[in-house]
Amino acid sequence: MVLYFIGLGLGDEKDITVKGLEAVKRCKKVYLESYTSILTTNKSKLESLYGKEVIEADRIFVESGCEGMLTEAINDEIAFLVVGDPFCATTHADLFLRANELGVQVQTIHNASIFTAVGLTGLQLYKFGETVSIPFFTENWRPYSFYDKINRNLEKKLHTLVLLDIKVKEQSEEDLIRGRMIFQPPRFMNVSQACQQLLEAEDNLKHGSITPETLVFGVLRVGAPDQKIVVRSIRQFSQSEDLGGPLHSMVIPGEVDEIERLMMGYHQARSEM
Amino acid sequence: MVLYFIGLGLGDEKDITVKGLEAVKRCKKVYLESYTSILTTNKSKLESLYGKEVIEADRIFVESGCEGMLTEAINDEIAFLVVGDPFCATTHADLFLRANELGVQVQTIHNASIFTAVGLTGLQLYKFGETVSIPFFTENWRPYSFYDKINRNLEKKLHTLVLLDIKVKEQSEEDLIRGRMIFQPPRFMNVSQACQQLLEAEDNLKHGSITPETLVFGVLRVGAPDQKIVVRSIRQFSQSEDLGGPLHSMVIPGEVDEIERLMMGYHQARSEM
Repeated sequence: MVLYFIGLGLGDEKDITVKGLEAVKRCKKVYLESYTSILTTNKSKLESLYGKEVIEADRIFVESGCEGMLTEAINDEIAFLVVGDPFCATTHADLFLRANELGVQVQTIHNASIFTAVGLTGLQLYKFGETVSIPFFTENWRPYSFYDKINRNLEKKLHTLVLLDIKVKEQSEEDLIRGRMIFQPPRFMNVSQACQQLLEAEDNLKHGSITPETLVFGVLRVGAPDQKIVVRSIRQFSQSEDLGGPLHSMVIPGEVDEIERLMMGYHQARSEM
Repeated sequence: MVLYFIGLGLGDEKDITVKGLEAVKRCKKVYLESYTSILTTNKSKLESLYGKEVIEADRIFVESGCEGMLTEAINDEIAFLVVGDPFCATTHADLFLRANELGVQVQTIHNASIFTAVGLTGLQLYKFGETVSIPFFTENWRPYSFYDKINRNLEKKLHTLVLLDIKVKEQSEEDLIRGRMIFQPPRFMNVSQACQQLLEAEDNLKHGSITPETLVFGVLRVGAPDQKIVVRSIRQFSQSEDLGGPLHSMVIPGEVDEIERLMMGYHQARSEM
């Protein structure tokens, strides 16, 4: 039968497509991927729109191979819901291949993702270079390679979408060693932390392609009712305490054309929060 | 009042989101942008799902500034439908700014776009470099700069999404001079033509980063029931006559990891059409 990979888009339960909703209603079981991202609505709202139970597929479920779900999909229609677009997370290509080995057909129902919704900034998508992820620094692990990539994009005058670290269903080192399924509270990097880490990277690598005064975009809670696009300097962002809850992303503009400059000005003028 | 920018996604009328559909049903008038892209369904199917008339906003409408629509949005809720995601086309940033000047609030309802749906290939989105567009060559105009960009991505081992030219509502040179609103039939570049132009660019520029034997992805009619992901060599594609109708895009892979290699093999094995 069929395993549907269904994108939920970026906001609440109503961001599913009409086609996705029809598929969910047909399916015998509905799983929700809750390992690589977070839902900005809650599970009970999904259940009420779908008229059926939603089973959370957490880190353990996904890493242990989603065996049960794949087996069920041999004989039934099963839905696997993913926040954003289903193929924006890498684990799902693996799941696709394993479904195929079992003779299960995969059908994908696409949806919005931060990779394109970032067009909201007014910066043109085809002028973005490689996407960059900034991980949480720890005391002993402070990798600066994300700044090398940003620097390469800036050298070519390209914009950079910067995705910020998410820690969901992480075990502490001790719980991991002892095999205890106890999870840390989820953590989401905000633009303020990202800018602090970016300034630290510049202090060390001295590429000189950003300065504390460089203007960048904070892209906050896209799709949610309190979505904000904020334009400030990296220094201002590093000191900002008014940015609100997750999810945050960032855009570092390269060379801007006339319309992009106007859009940036528009968002900057509205950035007093 | 509100001007809704509503993404229609990539397939048929049911790819609108539940939120988008609710907004459309509330709106007094519904415009459909039909200048930069094509709908793979037809207008009457949209009208039957929405329960109201859909007015086509063609090239003349958009270039002349959508005045009427903006004026209507001062007092009413108006929908502006865009295939894919609303901010993937650049004209819409301009429209956004002009709405703002008139005191019209713009609300965006995101949807899937080829920029992210291309994750279907199994290639990871954060390993894509700058997106490239290939224009139709004419007898006297054969720009090869798209190949410089592909070459730069390949040097950095990045994948490239290649968008292919669309000519919708184009006037002939003579009709344009005489001010006659007579439009040429729409034309869409296919992967076969794109590969011929790519080989010509390599013959002239000799970057050496592609050869006729380089394997690339044809990404055909994403979201439509006859969607296909085809992996062949550039030489094979340049001779392929079996690729079917629009829209076509292409992906030129950079360095592939293990899962990406498996996904590429999966699609290659299924590429006999």
